[in-house]
Amino acid sequence: MSSSSTGSRGETVPTVPSAAGVADDVDVDGVDVGGLLDRGRTLATPVLRAAVDRLAPPMDTVAAYHFGWIDAEGRPSAGDGGKAVRPALALLSAEAAGAAPEVGIPGAVAVELVHNFSLLHDDLMDGDEQRRHRDTVWKVHGPAQAILVGDALFALANEILLELDTVEAGRATRRLTTASRKLIDGQAQDISYEHRERVTVEECLEMEGNKTGALLACAVSIGAVLGGADERTADALERYGYHLGLAFQAVDDLLGIWGDPEATGKQTWSDLRQRKKSLPVVAALSAEGEAAERLGELLAADAKSSDFENFSEEEFAARAALIEEAGGRDWTAQEARRQHTIAVEALGSVDMPERVRRQLVALADFVVVRKR
Amino acid sequence: MSSSSTGSRGETVPTVPSAAGVADDVDVDGVDVGGLLDRGRTLATPVLRAAVDRLAPPMDTVAAYHFGWIDAEGRPSAGDGGKAVRPALALLSAEAAGAAPEVGIPGAVAVELVHNFSLLHDDLMDGDEQRRHRDTVWKVHGPAQAILVGDALFALANEILLELDTVEAGRATRRLTTASRKLIDGQAQDISYEHRERVTVEECLEMEGNKTGALLACAVSIGAVLGGADERTADALERYGYHLGLAFQAVDDLLGIWGDPEATGKQTWSDLRQRKKSLPVVAALSAEGEAAERLGELLAADAKSSDFENFSEEEFAARAALIEEAGGRDWTAQEARRQHTIAVEALGSVDMPERVRRQLVALADFVVVRKR
Repeated sequence: MSSSSTGSRGETVPTVPSAAGVADDVDVDGVDVGGLLDRGRTLATPVLRAAVDRLAPPMDTVAAYHFGWIDAEGRPSAGDGGKAVRPALALLSAEAAGAAPEVGIPGAVAVELVHNFSLLHDDLMDGDEQRRHRDTVWKVHGPAQAILVGDALFALANEILLELDTVEAGRATRRLTTASRKLIDGQAQDISYEHRERVTVEECLEMEGNKTGALLACAVSIGAVLGGADERTADALERYGYHLGLAFQAVDDLLGIWGDPEATGKQTWSDLRQRKKSLPVVAALSAEGEAAERLGELLAADAKSSDFENFSEEEFAARAALIEEAGGRDWTAQEARRQHTIAVEALGSVDMPERVRRQLVALADFVVVRKR
Repeated sequence: MSSSSTGSRGETVPTVPSAAGVADDVDVDGVDVGGLLDRGRTLATPVLRAAVDRLAPPMDTVAAYHFGWIDAEGRPSAGDGGKAVRPALALLSAEAAGAAPEVGIPGAVAVELVHNFSLLHDDLMDGDEQRRHRDTVWKVHGPAQAILVGDALFALANEILLELDTVEAGRATRRLTTASRKLIDGQAQDISYEHRERVTVEECLEMEGNKTGALLACAVSIGAVLGGADERTADALERYGYHLGLAFQAVDDLLGIWGDPEATGKQTWSDLRQRKKSLPVVAALSAEGEAAERLGELLAADAKSSDFENFSEEEFAARAALIEEAGGRDWTAQEARRQHTIAVEALGSVDMPERVRRQLVALADFVVVRKR
């Protein structure tokens, strides 16, 4: 994503954020986003670990490997547990409803469990061999463990909420269940699109809304629901989260093609290798002109090619260049900014402490400018 | 399972039931068990189908194939949806709490969804190619659809309950979640036992309690919970269901080795082909004497054999004969009767209409004498 702004440490954040020069640990909009992410991680992780410890062996070990707490040989590991955007959002969500951030912890943990259930299953279905710079669970522990531990994390998510035994927890579980269903619908769409020659931009956005928007939406409402927020407030927070999710996914789609493998932990041209019909691809294919036409021919031929597995770096680079030339990269960057704007606007209808509002806006900015 | 009793149509049921001559559609103990199973199927199936229709394509089609509503080409099919013991129990459960049977329907559907989620995933993990006389979902639609549709059914189960939006539904969801976690623990144990040379009878019973007992227990309590029963009543009903599940599984283990493939829809010696450490095997291995010793040597050699996949009918028959000779078959049949007795006794502590009590007892009898 290119832009003329230069966002860097301590500076006022640009209205239209840019990827340039923003690292994970910086202030955005005068808000310590790194600190917010750390707080989410610090408060949620012990509860998450205690939840995972409930699993029957060897699922506890397999899950600990997945979360990066141990390595493939079972030795303790610092690990890269991911960005932890969702826990940070769940705690802010509780604060948005006027509750203490701690009230959001079971919600943060439940959402993380559902998120990681989907990662475990999706990596297996998609044949992805790397996640967070490490071999995926099905590569290390086999497909059966990936299925089983995914199932267990999904069940644990509901357990963590329901054992609170409150009316609010019941409402939170219902929202989480709705989000989980959408997540699964989204994965079904994603898989089916890979076998189709043409996917419209609208279909792609619907899929990404299900796959990424729904669970981020849940993260942003679940803390508030646990904190006693009414349904209208929770719905408005979900709107923010849903569009934040779409912005997040647009950035992910850019990183999936043009991301730095060192930063993302994925292979070069990762999404192209998997024939993903991601936003840049779909937008490029729906454009007019020679590049779009040439891209369409190439991808159609690729779909039938028996040699696709052995494609060289140069062949993927050529496809990426055509996507960019046809405007797919720019369109997706613009879409990320558009969804970011809608997300921030949705916050307007919610009555919440000003500090929390600024923090939610800063998190939205961060999501759009991240590099991994 | 052999016994001196002769239970047949219309006769008084023996205290210790026998497999001889009892078909699905007979009266047991003067109770029309076939009618109870039919009622469960008739009331639950339309709601189950409506739930499955909510799934995004192609998951709706894949699920419809799994349930036997359509064939592999998508044509409507009469299908064999299984015995439907769980829906029958869930409706009786509501009646045990003094509610109308219909109150148990969402519980019946939720339990069926969880049961079928586990079948979809277990068949894939275990590499089972046949279920209910048809190719399994992963064989027909591929592993990804088996994973995905399983996930979707699991999520749907919670959705169906939580959208009732009552305190009772929250309690029911919590019990279902606990049962689901145990189900997954049980599958994890089952898989890990296949790679172990020795498994104790206690470990095997714990695994089967998780894998079969927990969800049957939930089926028998969920209708009552939805009907407003207190926790003590629900717990007592769960005890009945748990031990009924252990009896059910003991019979399943017998059928898994000595069952008639025509009736069970599985391969001959099905469990032996999968090296399942089922009750007859574990009981035989833990016995004294020459047959047990010879069996232990054979199975240990089998575990290392590269030719196991190509074993002949005769080789499996020889192993089955040793299991029987070592007493594994008799012990398991006796265990089925023992668990059946505990189950029926647990009903004693619950205050319920006499008709419902007689029906629950008859269902327990049926479970132990079934041939498929």
